Amino acid sequence: MKFTLEKKDSLTNARTGTLTTDHGVIQTPIFMPVGTAATVKAVHQRELKEDIKAQIILGNTYHLYLRPGLDILEKAGGLHQFNGWDRPILTDSGGYQVFSLAGTRKINEEGVTFKSHIDGSKHVFTPEGVMDIQRTIGADIIMAFDECTPYPCEYGYARKSMEMTHRWLTRCIQRFDSTEGKYGYGQTLFPIVQGSVYKDLRKQSAQFIADQGREGNAIGGLSVGEPAEMMYEMTEMVTDILPADKPRYLMGVGTPANILECIALGVDMFDCVMPTRNARNGMLFTSEGIINIRNEKWKDDFSPIDPAIGNYASTFYSKAYLRHLTVSKEILAAQIASIHNLAFYLWLVGQAREHIQAGDFAVWKEQMVKKVSTRL
Amino acid sequence: MKFTLEKKDSLTNARTGTLTTDHGVIQTPIFMPVGTAATVKAVHQRELKEDIKAQIILGNTYHLYLRPGLDILEKAGGLHQFNGWDRPILTDSGGYQVFSLAGTRKINEEGVTFKSHIDGSKHVFTPEGVMDIQRTIGADIIMAFDECTPYPCEYGYARKSMEMTHRWLTRCIQRFDSTEGKYGYGQTLFPIVQGSVYKDLRKQSAQFIADQGREGNAIGGLSVGEPAEMMYEMTEMVTDILPADKPRYLMGVGTPANILECIALGVDMFDCVMPTRNARNGMLFTSEGIINIRNEKWKDDFSPIDPAIGNYASTFYSKAYLRHLTVSKEILAAQIASIHNLAFYLWLVGQAREHIQAGDFAVWKEQMVKKVSTRL
Repeated sequence: MKFTLEKKDSLTNARTGTLTTDHGVIQTPIFMPVGTAATVKAVHQRELKEDIKAQIILGNTYHLYLRPGLDILEKAGGLHQFNGWDRPILTDSGGYQVFSLAGTRKINEEGVTFKSHIDGSKHVFTPEGVMDIQRTIGADIIMAFDECTPYPCEYGYARKSMEMTHRWLTRCIQRFDSTEGKYGYGQTLFPIVQGSVYKDLRKQSAQFIADQGREGNAIGGLSVGEPAEMMYEMTEMVTDILPADKPRYLMGVGTPANILECIALGVDMFDCVMPTRNARNGMLFTSEGIINIRNEKWKDDFSPIDPAIGNYASTFYSKAYLRHLTVSKEILAAQIASIHNLAFYLWLVGQAREHIQAGDFAVWKEQMVKKVSTRL
Repeated sequence: MKFTLEKKDSLTNARTGTLTTDHGVIQTPIFMPVGTAATVKAVHQRELKEDIKAQIILGNTYHLYLRPGLDILEKAGGLHQFNGWDRPILTDSGGYQVFSLAGTRKINEEGVTFKSHIDGSKHVFTPEGVMDIQRTIGADIIMAFDECTPYPCEYGYARKSMEMTHRWLTRCIQRFDSTEGKYGYGQTLFPIVQGSVYKDLRKQSAQFIADQGREGNAIGGLSVGEPAEMMYEMTEMVTDILPADKPRYLMGVGTPANILECIALGVDMFDCVMPTRNARNGMLFTSEGIINIRNEKWKDDFSPIDPAIGNYASTFYSKAYLRHLTVSKEILAAQIASIHNLAFYLWLVGQAREHIQAGDFAVWKEQMVKKVSTRL
């Protein structure tokens, strides 16, 4: 993997860059749609490319490991072959899911024992095992196995957890560097900064992660319930320490405003389930503000959902039609809203990129944060 | 509306034709995807055109009347404007739904009183009212208000019901012919043959319908539980009586084999929820036979769903991937399977048309009926 910094904003820490993988190029800053179980929910692969203009998507190791399972993924020749997405993929480590989703789990130094949410069967994730699993899934960018601490989190627990995450990282790196990709293309491992909302821990963790000298670095454990200002403060501290010539990935963030603010802090990569999950609940992010499409006020508004985005779904379908589909619980409602919200997120980071290149990012960002946060 | 007969098969009663409406041309025999509530479930309008190659779709008067409601449809400028489907549309009369879906309904000579399945509110459908509703929805082809008798049905009830359906038809025609379309294009009214599975009633009804001299005619009350052979017998008797120079529409039929057999009996138009409903349950109709995609045997079959159909979903996605999505209850499973099944139905009637034109329909049909009925 190769990362080239292109332009650095003069008033903020925002920057543009190009990330080159064996499955193609990613222009940063970028948003990565979440494709949990080998599918971005309610969206066709063709739509991801042509309408949403996704450059890279996520897969969730926990879900893929349970279903379809590693045997199927390996027989298929990896996740790209299995779901037909031939552009870059990033997989998380499964840590977040086994800590937050799986009901009964036991953590110790070795790893985590958990029960499948599907059939209750017992499984163990270790740092080494999770590297092997992600080798079999075959994503271009894979993540270290970490503990994502909840919010709030006591200082003592946050410190111990961070230290274990660092020891786990050493084991991940050892395993990853002593193995090879299974399908003939390269993979790269991103370590993850933890430390909850404690400045000294975040600094210590960022320094430890930076010292590993990997090709890219991630910031975890944020957007888990803490106030936005706290998230920005932690992110700023961490991006100051993480090397400037490597891509920075802020995991699980966030609202359109969160993303713009964190681009200004020097973050290059984002992912979040919000655009798709909220779409399925009738909440639309648009270039004019936030819409609850269930609201009576849209029932006879026959204007397009958001023509500024320029894709099929956002231009072709009207607000009144989407409202009808949503209140009627039609599947097409989830389809249209999911495409729209993702296309909006990709449009937003694309606009940010253009304004960084043009040199007027700071002014544009201030206006845009207000606009995209307005409730219409 | 204009119907031109093109070719008549020499061994069967199959024929090809062209139906011209103000929203475009329909080549018969044709299958019409069902778009109950202004949406063909799980399918984008663009996919209906480009991948499924639908030439005409259905809307359900009962559902559209309740939601979005006539005020919204009229403000939009009719259903075509509301859902963005600019090719022909046919609406049923709502009769089938108020008799079969609505829990508590009362029939008398005037019409039917029923309660909404959505909010329990009380409504009345009369022949005149249903004409007015379909004028407001604005479909190209609209249907007379009839009683669709269940199976089995006692002779006495079937006769009385048929006679009332005929009196209702007279009222429908009076109302329809004394009103005009609201949106500047033409509409045409198809009457419906009833008579349950009784030969004398079917003959009497077919004669009454034929005598009205409308631009097209429909056969109702079949595919409601009677044996297939009985359906074919009734259809054959009725098509013998209905004028050959008018299109014949067999309502609610059926399996791929049913459709091929009834094309051979001289039917030109079909609709059925089976391809979309069964798709959502993981049942695929393919050019090689019927697939239950949940079956373990497909879990590592990475071949395309059905490349013979030639559209995106059937060619791009593998059986193993679709199986994974189906068992994982992912929305994309319903999307892929719905597109595939509809594309297959349109492919099948398109093939039938080609073979009628080529003069080898009878031989092809015998082979195809066996093939499409095979359980893979």
